[in-house]
Amino acid sequence: MKILLAQSAGFCFGVRRATTMAFEAAESRDRICSLGPIIHSPQLVEKLEEKGVRVLRQVEEITGGTVIIRSHGVTSQELDALGERDVEIVDATCPFVKKAQEHADLLSSEGYTVVLVGEKDHPEVQGIVSYARQGDVYVVADPEDAVALPRCSRMGIVAQTTQSIENLRTIVDICLEKCKELRIYNTICDATSVRQNEARSIARQADVMLVIGGFNSANTNRLARICRDIQPRTHHIETAGQIESQWFDGAKTVGITAGASTPRWIIDEVVKRVQA
Amino acid sequence: MKILLAQSAGFCFGVRRATTMAFEAAESRDRICSLGPIIHSPQLVEKLEEKGVRVLRQVEEITGGTVIIRSHGVTSQELDALGERDVEIVDATCPFVKKAQEHADLLSSEGYTVVLVGEKDHPEVQGIVSYARQGDVYVVADPEDAVALPRCSRMGIVAQTTQSIENLRTIVDICLEKCKELRIYNTICDATSVRQNEARSIARQADVMLVIGGFNSANTNRLARICRDIQPRTHHIETAGQIESQWFDGAKTVGITAGASTPRWIIDEVVKRVQA
Repeated sequence: MKILLAQSAGFCFGVRRATTMAFEAAESRDRICSLGPIIHSPQLVEKLEEKGVRVLRQVEEITGGTVIIRSHGVTSQELDALGERDVEIVDATCPFVKKAQEHADLLSSEGYTVVLVGEKDHPEVQGIVSYARQGDVYVVADPEDAVALPRCSRMGIVAQTTQSIENLRTIVDICLEKCKELRIYNTICDATSVRQNEARSIARQADVMLVIGGFNSANTNRLARICRDIQPRTHHIETAGQIESQWFDGAKTVGITAGASTPRWIIDEVVKRVQA
Repeated sequence: MKILLAQSAGFCFGVRRATTMAFEAAESRDRICSLGPIIHSPQLVEKLEEKGVRVLRQVEEITGGTVIIRSHGVTSQELDALGERDVEIVDATCPFVKKAQEHADLLSSEGYTVVLVGEKDHPEVQGIVSYARQGDVYVVADPEDAVALPRCSRMGIVAQTTQSIENLRTIVDICLEKCKELRIYNTICDATSVRQNEARSIARQADVMLVIGGFNSANTNRLARICRDIQPRTHHIETAGQIESQWFDGAKTVGITAGASTPRWIIDEVVKRVQA
């Protein structure tokens, strides 16, 4: 059986940076936590917990020591509240997410109606939206949401960094007729589109496709959806242990890719298991 | 034979305004000219000539008296050159075209690469482009032109007021991946899209379609193209005299629309001729 492993599988720049910052901080501090899971990989979060990094959900639970801001960022209100506490902040927010937060801030302060293209419940989205502090702000997940937007004179669009360019494009098309001025910051991270394009190419060649990553990872879920549209025999797994041998019946070529928050060791285990 | 006459046929706001300004100015001035034809209707330009309004092509030819700036506007260089002469200026530039000029000016001065969606040789386009005085500026007529654009960090788009929303949308789609920030002023005039939508609707019901307007009128040519795509039996005419009776062989319904610079009396003559 031939294995096609995506070169772009696994950690993106922002996740690698956040993970490194978290392990380094854990080395030198006694009392350390992260506000929400540092990245959407339960396996990596577990490894960090072994090093003493507790995952706390609320600012109120943090009473001292060091707090790591996860790669997806937090809301401006949470950051303000942390600033008022006696804690050291290690900000591991992905620089691309930071940029999206800054653009939302700028558009909002310049009087634009802010439209964020992304998933309403995703922490990255909630973080970015919180920076649009003035005027109207809408989260738009799909074309249907965009059609429902009210007309306005000036509209500013920012995207969740892991959105697909196709979704952004369709929503821009709709918004173009909703306003007289449309200002778009294409904050989709290059890593996302590179990964998605490579996944498409591999899915076209594969009889079975494996997509590895946290079930709570938006970008992995999207990656699985993209692959499934091309190759229905696509399986989204978190670890090698979830692989079932009958998936590969009659398959000559197996494609493998992984989300931005999937650690290398998990990818290696999956490749080994498929080979076996 | 049933006639479907478009309600939106004929003069738009800007053309009506420019025509009224020109006739009023002609009433009270002895020495009067326009820089280029005031609107793209040879028949109306002829009527104005009878009132003493000469059409001059170059600023250098204008040595005094009153000059009318046509509805399509002129270049900023021409306006500056006129300002240095001993002439009275009656600025009949369409307010929507003026807005597009102002947006090009603003985008250019704020450091955007300016992209004007429009026809390279059209006077309105040449006027708007001239206001993008700093940095790069490109005129993009179609998707092919847009694909050839170089990448840049910040791109600002303005549209010729008579462009179709479909062309603008397609070009925006392409530009979205050419830059990190895309700022679009949708300067397409509502009158244009209303007229185009009504033309589509009538063309679908008609066996023969007549589109009336100057052969040098961009918006009339575009209107004819839109109708021809739906109803191949579409004829673009300037006057009733050009109608040929065999066009209507076997036709039960005739649709009629007209460009933004087509005077009412010409439309009335066409309707009369078709009825006869």
